[in-house]
Amino acid sequence: MKYQDYSREQRDAELSTLWEGINKIKEKNIKLNMARGVPSPDQLDLSRKMLDILTSESDCHAEDGTDCCNYGVMDGIPECKKLMADVMGVTPDMVMVGGNSSLNMMFDTIALFMTHPVTGGTPAWSLVPDRKFLCPVPGYDRHFGVTEYFGFQMIPVPMDENGPDMELVEELVKDPTVKGMWCVPKYSNPSGISYSDEVVRRIAALQPAAADFRVMWDNAYCIHDLTDDHDEILNIFEECEKTGNIDMPIEFCSTSKITFPGSGVAAMAASANNMAVIKGKYKLQNIGYDKLNMLRHVRFFGDIEGMKAHMKKHAEILRPRFEIVLNKLGENLDELGIIRYNRPRGGYFVCVDVLDGTAKRVVELCKEAGVNLTGAGATYPYGNDPHDSNIRIAPSFPSLEDLASAMDIFCLCARIAALEKLNA
Amino acid sequence: MKYQDYSREQRDAELSTLWEGINKIKEKNIKLNMARGVPSPDQLDLSRKMLDILTSESDCHAEDGTDCCNYGVMDGIPECKKLMADVMGVTPDMVMVGGNSSLNMMFDTIALFMTHPVTGGTPAWSLVPDRKFLCPVPGYDRHFGVTEYFGFQMIPVPMDENGPDMELVEELVKDPTVKGMWCVPKYSNPSGISYSDEVVRRIAALQPAAADFRVMWDNAYCIHDLTDDHDEILNIFEECEKTGNIDMPIEFCSTSKITFPGSGVAAMAASANNMAVIKGKYKLQNIGYDKLNMLRHVRFFGDIEGMKAHMKKHAEILRPRFEIVLNKLGENLDELGIIRYNRPRGGYFVCVDVLDGTAKRVVELCKEAGVNLTGAGATYPYGNDPHDSNIRIAPSFPSLEDLASAMDIFCLCARIAALEKLNA
Repeated sequence: MKYQDYSREQRDAELSTLWEGINKIKEKNIKLNMARGVPSPDQLDLSRKMLDILTSESDCHAEDGTDCCNYGVMDGIPECKKLMADVMGVTPDMVMVGGNSSLNMMFDTIALFMTHPVTGGTPAWSLVPDRKFLCPVPGYDRHFGVTEYFGFQMIPVPMDENGPDMELVEELVKDPTVKGMWCVPKYSNPSGISYSDEVVRRIAALQPAAADFRVMWDNAYCIHDLTDDHDEILNIFEECEKTGNIDMPIEFCSTSKITFPGSGVAAMAASANNMAVIKGKYKLQNIGYDKLNMLRHVRFFGDIEGMKAHMKKHAEILRPRFEIVLNKLGENLDELGIIRYNRPRGGYFVCVDVLDGTAKRVVELCKEAGVNLTGAGATYPYGNDPHDSNIRIAPSFPSLEDLASAMDIFCLCARIAALEKLNA
Repeated sequence: MKYQDYSREQRDAELSTLWEGINKIKEKNIKLNMARGVPSPDQLDLSRKMLDILTSESDCHAEDGTDCCNYGVMDGIPECKKLMADVMGVTPDMVMVGGNSSLNMMFDTIALFMTHPVTGGTPAWSLVPDRKFLCPVPGYDRHFGVTEYFGFQMIPVPMDENGPDMELVEELVKDPTVKGMWCVPKYSNPSGISYSDEVVRRIAALQPAAADFRVMWDNAYCIHDLTDDHDEILNIFEECEKTGNIDMPIEFCSTSKITFPGSGVAAMAASANNMAVIKGKYKLQNIGYDKLNMLRHVRFFGDIEGMKAHMKKHAEILRPRFEIVLNKLGENLDELGIIRYNRPRGGYFVCVDVLDGTAKRVVELCKEAGVNLTGAGATYPYGNDPHDSNIRIAPSFPSLEDLASAMDIFCLCARIAALEKLNA
């Protein structure tokens, strides 16, 4: 029966029982973290052997003869450009391999466009005081952090199971001060949905008023499938080629959730026009990123097939964790009518909508019981979830046992918060 | 006898002989590179064992328990902050460890100040259309590249054997649009001189009109001594503490020329006020730089004493190269009155002033004979050496034999260019 259909007395009785449960848990002084999409130690162990790849005896030359121990090669050694191109489904000439973080490359890109024109005929974005950025919601808090830092007015665009509301996007881009849009097209952070073919095609077909409108295509989870039966998205560059919009998308990816977060390799892909502007900055910024680490990655994986085989091992570790989350939600909450959630086939998150107006309270209750969740609202620009309902659950890091405990606590807290709200 | 005192006939005869010499060399189709301060393969081998430090069996936790294989720690693991603090002679709390490149950290810092105020009460530099930066000359072309990119008017400040002309600097900083100064205080690139105590004290005592005037203290060669009898510079932060200017300097260093260029560790040091602004950006830009590489460095060196012992091995490889350059210059050019040069006790360059108006011609002649030098003028803002006399010689990369050949060619070309000039 749904909580909404409980009588006041039933709710009060239920609340008492739930509080007893939560108070018992508090006595255990549990400390569990489901706040961020962080690989578990088991997953990190999968890449341990990469640390043996380069030794003092290794030949550290790239295939073009570059000594990876020395200066040079601003956009990455050829074999790493090839590997990251295959990850993104583009050609190596479109790729620049950077440092350890795709977030850093995205930040650098927005920073670049703040001080220098994106195209020949447009002003740098810092000269557009009412600059705006489209932010599909729920979305990635670190994306929103970047555009907030650079003074963009962030416009939330609701997502459904197909991706962002394209009717709204098509309307919004008629405003020439709308300069770009954040996208996590596959296994979106946090909703886990992948953009439908129609959504990708409509993005590719956009006719923004701003010639310097850019789509930040953060393909963070491009090969991060949980099951063999996984999502596929259209190739944004192929679609934009057809529509004459090849300069619109800039794609990003990294091996942070493939090898070692923080010691991986990040890359971006863009059209020749965009790359000319981007490399015009990078060549002044850095003589060349860590080529030994690029070499380490290439020799560890061999090629994209090796990397995909590696991702299946990640999936084997991650899948049971997602199952625990989904099973716990299903068993404890489905019939109570206080929750909606997705069943992602990849990525790092389960996105939960608790009863409107209770997300902050659920996160607070969980914290008191020892479970750390992403702050409620973090998935919205300015941390402002208008429904106060969205919570991002990151099941990757805890052990299976801890995760089960954490989800029990979460479900208790979601029920308490819902009953409090219904009683209010 | 000086070329200036030769008769026209003597010069013509000398020129003929020199051309014969250079034409013979051209037949050999030599290809030698002295363009950039790049460590030689022998030097890189010194750090080879660092590649064995972390293996699949290693404990990859930092001393505070951080798993260096995973996300986190935005400003560097504690032991690496300590090491880089010791390199710069500061306390670890003043340090942020970044990616693989101090140039990138300098670029990031200027980029930050372009879009965000340096201090509470000042406008972002992009809002100052006539912004200016002081550039001691000759200086580092990549520094000038950064400030040119961000639209600063670069004001050259002549250097002598004590550092920049401080009388001029003290005058120039009265202009509130002068926002900063580039400094390579020890073994300056390219002149090889180190700032005298008086110069450092006068920099620390500056009273710039701009509250957001910042000194970019690129201590690239802080432990890069060639001999035991080496230069010492005053600690800029200690001096600025005394003058109440602690927020003025921002220091940079890296292990690019200690371990592997491109796979080293970069760091910066700054006051608490500056660090608050700088980290306020970095926390949005990157979740944390490569901690495994930090760990690799710390475990390879142990501590600053280990690193200094390592630098002595570099010196043993570099010293003979500097001796060849200086001996060749001395033997071939000293008595001709067409050259001035320094005798650095560290760093990566020998800085040569050929006869006024001949530097471009010398570089061109060398190139024709197979020797690639840094472009003439590169050591000045906008590539504009008003005397067309300065040439940066980078002796580190070639073998001893190649270097001797290259210097023979250089000396021939310097003589030819001088005679052509005197005959003109």
